[in-house]
Amino acid sequence: MPDILLAEDNNMNESKALPSLYTAVSPALLKLYDITDSIVVIIDVLRATSTIATAIYNGAKAVIPVDSVANCIEIGKQLNAITAGERDGKVAEGLQYGNSPFEYPAAFIGGKTLVLTTTNGTKLLHMALELGAAEIITGAFANLNEVCNYLINKKKPVLLACAAWKDRVNIEDSLFAGAVVNRIRQHFTINCDSSQMVEALYLLAGSDLYGFLKDKEASHYKRLTAFGLEKDIRHCLTADTAPVLPLYQDGKLIKAAL
Amino acid sequence: MPDILLAEDNNMNESKALPSLYTAVSPALLKLYDITDSIVVIIDVLRATSTIATAIYNGAKAVIPVDSVANCIEIGKQLNAITAGERDGKVAEGLQYGNSPFEYPAAFIGGKTLVLTTTNGTKLLHMALELGAAEIITGAFANLNEVCNYLINKKKPVLLACAAWKDRVNIEDSLFAGAVVNRIRQHFTINCDSSQMVEALYLLAGSDLYGFLKDKEASHYKRLTAFGLEKDIRHCLTADTAPVLPLYQDGKLIKAAL
Repeated sequence: MPDILLAEDNNMNESKALPSLYTAVSPALLKLYDITDSIVVIIDVLRATSTIATAIYNGAKAVIPVDSVANCIEIGKQLNAITAGERDGKVAEGLQYGNSPFEYPAAFIGGKTLVLTTTNGTKLLHMALELGAAEIITGAFANLNEVCNYLINKKKPVLLACAAWKDRVNIEDSLFAGAVVNRIRQHFTINCDSSQMVEALYLLAGSDLYGFLKDKEASHYKRLTAFGLEKDIRHCLTADTAPVLPLYQDGKLIKAAL
Repeated sequence: MPDILLAEDNNMNESKALPSLYTAVSPALLKLYDITDSIVVIIDVLRATSTIATAIYNGAKAVIPVDSVANCIEIGKQLNAITAGERDGKVAEGLQYGNSPFEYPAAFIGGKTLVLTTTNGTKLLHMALELGAAEIITGAFANLNEVCNYLINKKKPVLLACAAWKDRVNIEDSLFAGAVVNRIRQHFTINCDSSQMVEALYLLAGSDLYGFLKDKEASHYKRLTAFGLEKDIRHCLTADTAPVLPLYQDGKLIKAAL
């Protein structure tokens, strides 16, 4: 009997000790969460965090996320780095490259530093910094497995932060958050309707995420398709094309030593 | 041939002319939408807008939504009206009644005025007012059919505004928004991922909304169940128990003349 009670106690303690998992479906909701003890996962599937994973996986020394085109140009000059970024889905004026993972093959980006600014993803990362996030990583389907393993191993509170589109909730970032919730839920305490909702959405979408975005007429699907970027969308929805964990440290996203 | 072209033109014009439909899953996202030409549907399923529909259906002259307990007491005195409201799911100190539809049968509320303040729903209504909403109505499963018919007939832009819980997205308000989207979508232009997401969630939940909330461990389901309010939850998830359209006019919610 004492053994059984002990086992039950241990289970209860273990259950109580599970860290929390929350999802913010828009940057406008980030401030609702105390993230000072949390790992914040910045999610901008189309296309910032897909491109960040790809560039680092393909050997970039670092990706420096900056919040404005002017800063991007300035820091690019200082570091003699590649400057890239988009505004409203197109290469921003004054920058060299865009926000497509296909622009960063190993032959081009290997050993180089990329200074990147995007409409939503890099702004959200700076918000998380200002709100005192304990740790910041970036996630996309490109590095889904790495993100999940990292979060499970760290045993710390997690906030999945969707970049959305100018604060409006989007389907693709919600789907990725849902994929993460689905894979790591047994290691966390979830008292968060958003996390439950994005997981339900992900399970509903099934294996054909592209078909789901198309069927639901996702706003950014339509925006990028109008620019002829269907190939980018398909690539950004494919799991584990860039198995690497980008970790924010001293102003840069670098490959985490796992 | 000219006939066919004309028909196509007409179809295109009709399609272009469909009013927009958006969903804000949290009050924190309300400001993203220009609502000056829109009907805003305030949604606080558990329990403010369910109770508002019930009270008005049962013959209340008007429901006056106020944003603070102090205002509720003050206006209640001035009008010799019933004061009611909750904070954090319980009857607020100093008020006479709570936020349960069961407290407002016809024998009690008929012919009376109810001054009501709630944690989320009445606050959201005042936000919509401040943002210049063209028109404000309230919606819940209790008056689902009335809300949908009203929106279809008015042919104006619509914003479905979820009260959520202290700005955190909740499942029950999202489900109601999804039910509305599902019923009225062919009369509107939807370029809104949130609307698509809540409809998908609603379709996934199927006919057993209570079971869905329970299965997803919805935060407000757990909160109200802890107060012994399971019966309230079941009632608030039942469609068309109070077929009436509460319309905000001159500071009061009254029964709209349809």
